[in-house]
Order: sequence, then C-alpha cells, then structure tokens
Amino acid sequence: MNKIHLLFFATAALSGFAQQLPKDSIQIKQIYNEAFSNSPSYEQLRYLCKKIGHRLSGSPQAAKAVSWAELEMKKYAEKVTLQEVMVPHWVRGAKEKAVLIVDGKPSKEIPMLALGGSVATPKEGIKAEIIAVDSLSHLRKMADRVNGKIVFFRRPMNPTLISTFDAYSDAGDQRRLGPSEAAKYGAMGVIVRSLGLAADNYPHTGMLSYQSHTPQIPAAAISTNTAIELDKLLAQNKKLSLQLTINSHTLPDEKSYNVVGQIKGSTFPDEIIVVGGHLDSWDVGEGAHDDGTGCVQAMEVLRIFKALGIKPKRTIRAVLFMNEENGVKGGEKYAELAKLNKEKNIAAIESDAGGHTPRGFDFTDSPEKFAKWLPYFAPYDIKHFDKGYGGTDIHPLEDTGTVLIGFVPDSQRYFDYHHTDNDVFENVNKRELEMGSATIASLVYLLSEYGVK
Amino acid sequence: MNKIHLLFFATAALSGFAQQLPKDSIQIKQIYNEAFSNSPSYEQLRYLCKKIGHRLSGSPQAAKAVSWAELEMKKYAEKVTLQEVMVPHWVRGAKEKAVLIVDGKPSKEIPMLALGGSVATPKEGIKAEIIAVDSLSHLRKMADRVNGKIVFFRRPMNPTLISTFDAYSDAGDQRRLGPSEAAKYGAMGVIVRSLGLAADNYPHTGMLSYQSHTPQIPAAAISTNTAIELDKLLAQNKKLSLQLTINSHTLPDEKSYNVVGQIKGSTFPDEIIVVGGHLDSWDVGEGAHDDGTGCVQAMEVLRIFKALGIKPKRTIRAVLFMNEENGVKGGEKYAELAKLNKEKNIAAIESDAGGHTPRGFDFTDSPEKFAKWLPYFAPYDIKHFDKGYGGTDIHPLEDTGTVLIGFVPDSQRYFDYHHTDNDVFENVNKRELEMGSATIASLVYLLSEYGVK
Repeated sequence: MNKIHLLFFATAALSGFAQQLPKDSIQIKQIYNEAFSNSPSYEQLRYLCKKIGHRLSGSPQAAKAVSWAELEMKKYAEKVTLQEVMVPHWVRGAKEKAVLIVDGKPSKEIPMLALGGSVATPKEGIKAEIIAVDSLSHLRKMADRVNGKIVFFRRPMNPTLISTFDAYSDAGDQRRLGPSEAAKYGAMGVIVRSLGLAADNYPHTGMLSYQSHTPQIPAAAISTNTAIELDKLLAQNKKLSLQLTINSHTLPDEKSYNVVGQIKGSTFPDEIIVVGGHLDSWDVGEGAHDDGTGCVQAMEVLRIFKALGIKPKRTIRAVLFMNEENGVKGGEKYAELAKLNKEKNIAAIESDAGGHTPRGFDFTDSPEKFAKWLPYFAPYDIKHFDKGYGGTDIHPLEDTGTVLIGFVPDSQRYFDYHHTDNDVFENVNKRELEMGSATIASLVYLLSEYGVK
Repeated sequence: MNKIHLLFFATAALSGFAQQLPKDSIQIKQIYNEAFSNSPSYEQLRYLCKKIGHRLSGSPQAAKAVSWAELEMKKYAEKVTLQEVMVPHWVRGAKEKAVLIVDGKPSKEIPMLALGGSVATPKEGIKAEIIAVDSLSHLRKMADRVNGKIVFFRRPMNPTLISTFDAYSDAGDQRRLGPSEAAKYGAMGVIVRSLGLAADNYPHTGMLSYQSHTPQIPAAAISTNTAIELDKLLAQNKKLSLQLTINSHTLPDEKSYNVVGQIKGSTFPDEIIVVGGHLDSWDVGEGAHDDGTGCVQAMEVLRIFKALGIKPKRTIRAVLFMNEENGVKGGEKYAELAKLNKEKNIAAIESDAGGHTPRGFDFTDSPEKFAKWLPYFAPYDIKHFDKGYGGTDIHPLEDTGTVLIGFVPDSQRYFDYHHTDNDVFENVNKRELEMGSATIASLVYLLSEYGVK
C-alpha cells in the first residue's frame, strides 16, 4: 500500500464518542496512550524469556522467575505478597528419543516431546507396532487390536473452527485422556499428533491425565509433519513400529509461590479485582506467549494506574499464578486463601491466550451485563464480549461468585507456538502486547469504578 | 493455557444464527470451510515470494509475475485478460551507501534505502551537515539554515493511533513531500526516519513525489534505530554530517500488464464486482504482505466460487494490478478501459493492507448501507464495517460511481514489514491469509447476490 489515506474518520469517530461519554472515554484513551508510549512490558518479557527462560513448576528457573517478578511488581504495587504453595516437580530427564521403523527397518529419528506427567519407558526404551486411531471411540472399536502396541492418536485439529481454542478443545481429549484409555486395552505406549494447526516440525507437549487404577504408560507428542507422514505410510500399508525412549521422573513436590501485587481501593477496598497470568511454563521454548505475555500484562495494569495517577475505587490485584501447566496448585491456593480470609473477589480476569492483538473478553456468565461498556472499546476495534471460558487459574474462584473473565486476543497464530520450542520472545509483537495490556487495564478501570452490578 | 474449554458457545451461536438466515449463512460457512481446508494460496504465495521475488514495475521479475499470475488465474477464471499498460521503470542501481560522520570523523555506514523515484547523487556522493526537522512546517521555520545541508526528517509515527495506517498517513508527508520542500530552501539531500513503528534496523523505502519547477535532490530512508541514534547524538550537540551515495536511474517506460480473471454473472452479467491486489512490489524483500497476499486472495475468491459451484448472479473479476507502488498506471488503465467500454463496475474491493487476521472492511461511502450484512460475519468475529479508504488501484474508479471497499486486516504488525527487506513469506501466517480470503469471498458473494442497492 502506497497512498496516504485520511486520518479524519478515526479522529472524528473518537471525538464524537468523547463528547458523549467524556470522563471514562478520555481515561481509557489515556490508558491506551500510556501503554503504547511508555510500557516496559516488552523489555520485561525479553528478560523473562532470554535471561530466565522456560520455567516449569519446581525448576530452578521457576524459582528465579518468582524472585524477578517480586522485584518487578514492587515497582508498581503498594504491597507485594508471596503466597506459598507446594507444586509438582516433573522432570523430562536425559535425552528422550523416538526412532521410526518402517517394514522392520529403522528409518529415522523423529521429533518428539514426552507429554507432561508421562512416566518413563524402561531405560532401553520400548519397541512396538504403531496402530492409528482417530478418536477415543475409534480406539474402543479397535480394542482387540491394541494389546502390546503403541497407539497413535492421529486426529488433526479442525481447521474450520474460527477460534483455535475451540479446535484445541475439540482435539485435546486425545492428549489428555488417550494414554489411560489406550492402557485399558493393553497398549504399551501412546503417541499423539501435536495440538497445532500449522504443518511444521515442532512437537507440542502438554499435560496428560492418568486415570487411577489404570496402568501408566509412556506418552509423547509428535509433530504435525511427522503425523502427516505416518498417515501416508499407513495408507500405503507400510508396517510401522516405534522405538520410544522417555527418561522422565517425578521428584517430591517443591515449595513455590504466587506473586501478588496490590493497589488498595479508595472507596470499596474490600472489593477485589484480580488480573492475572501464570508464571510457570512448559520446559521447552521460552514460555513467551504461554504465558510470559499474561504476566507482564498483569503487572502493566498496575503500572498504568500508577503512571496515570488513577486511584481505583476498588482494590486491584495483579496475580502471577504458579503451576498452571501441570497442577493448577497456584490457582487453587489463591482461591483457598481467598475463602479462608473471606475476601470478596468480585471479578477476575486472566490473560492466558497469548499476546496477540486484543479482540475482547469472554465472560463465564452474563456478558450482556457488561455490554454497556462496549462503546468504550469501539475506538480500539475491540468488539468481542461473549460468553466463554475465564481461565484455568481463576477457575477455582468460581464457587465464590467471582465474575470470571478471559482476555481474548486474536487466536489464529497461538497454536503455532503453544507448548513448543517455538514459543519464544521473537514471536511476540510489541504493539500487540501493549494493546492487550491497555484493553485489560481499561476493563479493570471500569470494574474498579462501577463494580460488577 | 492448559485446560480445555467448551465448544458449546461457538457452535450454539452459529447454529442459532443459521436458523435465522439459513441460505446465505450456510453458504458463507462453506466459503470459510473451503478456504481453511483446501486453499492453495499459501503455496502460491511461497512461489511468488521465493521463486519470483520482489518485482518492481518494469523489472524482469514483474514480467515473470505477470506470466505466472496468468497461468494461475486460468485455473479458476472462465476468461483471463491481460490489460497492456506502460509503467515507469526506476532502478536503484549499484550499491548505495550512507556513512555517518560525527564531529568530523567518519563513524560508520548506516543502513539506508534510496526512496523510490529518487535521483542519484554524483558518483562520488554528496557530503553535507545533517539538520534535523520535525515536520514540513518546522522545516519552513528553519528555512534560513537549510542551504547546503542534508535535511533529516525525524518525526516518528504516532504509536497511539490504533490503526497503524492512520499513523502512516500522519507521518508520511515527510517522505512524500519532504525532498521537494527541502530543495526549495537549498538542501542538498534528504534522509527520512523510516515509516515503521518498531525500533529496528530495516530502512523502509517508498515513493517520494517531486514537485515540478523544484530542483530534484537525492533522498533516502534510514532505519528507526538509526534515527533514534541520530536524535541522541544531536541532543548531545554532536555535529553530524553524512556522506550519501545513490546510484539510481530511470529507464524508459516499460510495457506491462494487469492480469484480469473473470467469472460471468448468471443473472446480471453487466454488473461487475472487482476484487484486487497489486502484483508489483518494491525492489526489496519479497513483496509478501505488500501485496503478494492481496494477489493470492483475489485469485482465491475465484477458486472458492468454482470449488463450491457457486454461480454468481453478477460478474466477478479478480484483478491483479500492475504498478501500484510507483505510478498507479495499472489502476488508471483499468478505470480508463472500464469507462471506454461503458462497463458498470458496481463495487471494487482491494486487499492491500497485508495478510493478517481479517477485521472487516472500510467503505468510501455509506457503510451503513451494508451494515445489514454484519450478522453474517459475526461468527467469524468480523465486526468492522466503517467509513474509510478503498484502495490505491481502485481509486481511479471513484468517479464512475463504483462502491470502493478496502479490506481491513489487523494492522498492528503491517509496518514492521512494509517496503523493507523484512517483507518476506515467513512473516505471513497461513490461517490468517486464508481467513482473509474467506472474508473477502463472503462479501463478494453477498454483493453478487444482492448488488449494492
């Protein structure tokens, strides 16, 4: 694009709007201006990704991230608290490996990542024939052929679902439930097509969920490209086997912390608005979009309030939760303490869907109650206030009546990065990150002024 | 993000909607499904970027792009026409160069790109003191200090404007008009802070516009990082000079072509709907977002209609315009022929704002007339139907009464790539590209069914 078009429309729309609702719309414009002009978030994220790196619960990097976040938070919060919590400590261990065997001949090593929580194979690995299934129900139909095999859950994410999170949900049962379901029929191991929409070579890890009273068998993700290749080979009636070696182990639970920064409300200090992300990540990549961006955005909300001298009527808490990925112990601890202390957490917003351009928010209940605020967001092309999921870390607050709100950024690219070596700082865009912070801060501002009634 | 949330909301919303407006909403859902499932666009773009490369008007690559596009278009169109047009042929020439001199001592070579259309310096280059100005009006105030100097237009794009195209418009007068304005006061040359919002090392080229009866002086873009560095050095009262060498030249106009593919309307064949992008690019990078994506999206509209067996009531034309970047001769030729042939081009959509996630459309006139169609786009989170610019190539149709429509993708990243070596295939996301095509094809479908009344 070459020619310059007129600024007129944007400014006319904004100024007309400002006349209609002067105070709050001006405040929100200032919030966006502040985020775009003075945010340290991108450099904070660079530090978290490059100097600390990935940070699975219980790891030394997770401990480093807590210390770093506490110091950063102190720059903006009136009070910073560490909430102690015991978290699982799963370790991938020494080099894991998968070698594909085609018609009896070792073919090549394929990219793989053990799923989070997977047990190890014996030291020498396991070797078994691969049997492909499309779904858990397909597995049950094939039950008599599964014994002694490695089950390959092959179903791709559905590309026609517009929110990639819906496609993730739709295919995710294979990763979560597949290993135990396959074990019921005597499978020796499981491989799962990675939960990503792009055809690439990155395996995506993520939590599996073993059922009790079922043998625990090793399970790994393979890349979408490898899955496509296996599909082709099987369609050619090749006999495929896999030599799979996983060296994971689980250490005793480790002490860790949620990092909580607070600005006290001036008028209704007992009414608390939570804004959070999670500080832990998987043990690959840099945990940039998942969920470094959510962490720096939560801190940015406090910074913006401080920088603009906004005295919130209600209390605002930025919470960096520990252990979202493999236990949710931090989210549970926050809710447990809130109940113990009889706190009134009126609303909680979680940013854990990546740092892309903001589209709006999902509300677990009654988005129509908040639709009156949509006009404030129109100048920023933020028009998505829907019913939907809040967030994993804030979910334990549900039974206290807290309004749970999920921040919704554009989702198209998210699963190109999620739980992979590709989730790195370079894949986060500075403006998109800052615009997300401003959008969240604006909703926090409105909640702090008007509450949830 | 770890836990899986429910698919329920999205599907419930969609099915409710489908009951309300069955035929068109189902057709549009099929259009999106087709784009996400079977599109060749991403591989077409890979070919255009990697096998042909950048393709400034008049270059051998531009000629190759025409031949390639003609063959591709024949796969989907009932009729393919080449519209002959003479285009300018500016050539950057042998290695251009800028060396910064600080307090009299040569400091270092800085990244630069001559602006499109710039005249050359003498072979040995020019050397002059740098004088910084914020704007054209600031230049006029400094008029008596400009003679014999190199004027540095330093004003950054405004990061607080939400559409980055607004920020581009706002700062773009420096690049377009700066060289001739500076020449009026005796400047020897001009450097311009690149029109990008990221702090990086990529200079952004782009067209300058020399005024008649004003000396033509050489002009180049420097990267944002260099501009920031110059600002700092000048604030420290350093005396800065530049040794600038540009070896550009302008060859005689070259014969080239718009590539036009058509599907004839079944009911109102004389009413034409244009959907276009431009086939030329700047002579750096690969012309991926600008405007390879617009070209493959325009062709994809025809492919989707063919694949789904949609017989449009009105005629649909995919037009790949030549020479958007430095002359708009293709756009002018299309309009000239349309007028000559007394064609009724009822609507024209241009995709020339990058291949990012679609947000909607800008209409040069009366977006409210089309607001009735917004519900069809809601399931895809497409909610932007505003008043705004249509597109450079379709603009010459304005006085024929054509409704001009600009495709609006997310703009936050666009100026990280625009007119730079960084505008490469790798920076285009497959899903975002396909979702854009589906959005455009859906609007074309509605226009072909119902016209513009």
